[in-house]
Amino acid sequence: MTTSRPPLAFQDFQRLIREMYFEKDAARGVDGTFMWLMEEVGELAAALREGTPEEQAAEFADVLAWLTTIANVAGIDLAEAIEEKYGKGCPGCGQLVCTCDDAGKP
Amino acid sequence: MTTSRPPLAFQDFQRLIREMYFEKDAARGVDGTFMWLMEEVGELAAALREGTPEEQAAEFADVLAWLTTIANVAGIDLAEAIEEKYGKGCPGCGQLVCTCDDAGKP
Repeated sequence: MTTSRPPLAFQDFQRLIREMYFEKDAARGVDGTFMWLMEEVGELAAALREGTPEEQAAEFADVLAWLTTIANVAGIDLAEAIEEKYGKGCPGCGQLVCTCDDAGKP
Repeated sequence: MTTSRPPLAFQDFQRLIREMYFEKDAARGVDGTFMWLMEEVGELAAALREGTPEEQAAEFADVLAWLTTIANVAGIDLAEAIEEKYGKGCPGCGQLVCTCDDAGKP
C-alpha cells in the first residue's frame, strides 16, 4: 500500500478528467453519466469477487473517474467536499479513529 | 471549482480513511462494506436530483470515503490504480481529450 510515486492530488485528477471528458459528459448530463457510473460499480463488484488485484485496481480507477466526471458536470470540487466532511475526523463521532456504533453508519 | 486550499492527495485521504475505519471495515469485510457504499451511491443520486450543492458535495465525499475504505480492505492503492489507468490519457482512445465514439465507453 505504499508507493514511491509522487502524491496524486484530487484537484489534479479532477482537472485531468475534466480535460478528457467534460465536453462529452456535460452534453450527456448528470443522469446519463450516472448510468455509466453504475455500470462501473457493477464491474468493480465483479472484480472484487473474482478479479486479480490488477483488475480490481483498474475498476477502482474507473469508478473514481466516472464519479469525478459527474462531480465536474455537477460543479462539485471533490477535494473541498472531502475536507468539509472528513477533515475534522469521522463525521459520525468526530474521532480520528471512528468509535461509532458498529451497527451505525459508518 | 477552484480552491485556495492546499492539494489533497489520494494517498493522504486513503491513509486518513484507513486510520478512521480500517479495523471496523476489515472485520465487516468487502461484501458488507460494499452494501454501505451502495447506500451512499443511492444518497448521491437523490442529492443530484434534488439536493443543494452542499448536500451534493457531502454525498460525493461519502461515496469517496466508502470506495476508499473498500480499497483499503482489498489492499488497492488508489493513486497507483488511477495513474496506471488514466495516467497516459483516455484508456479508450489514448488521447488527453477523449475522442472515443459517443456511444462507446466512456
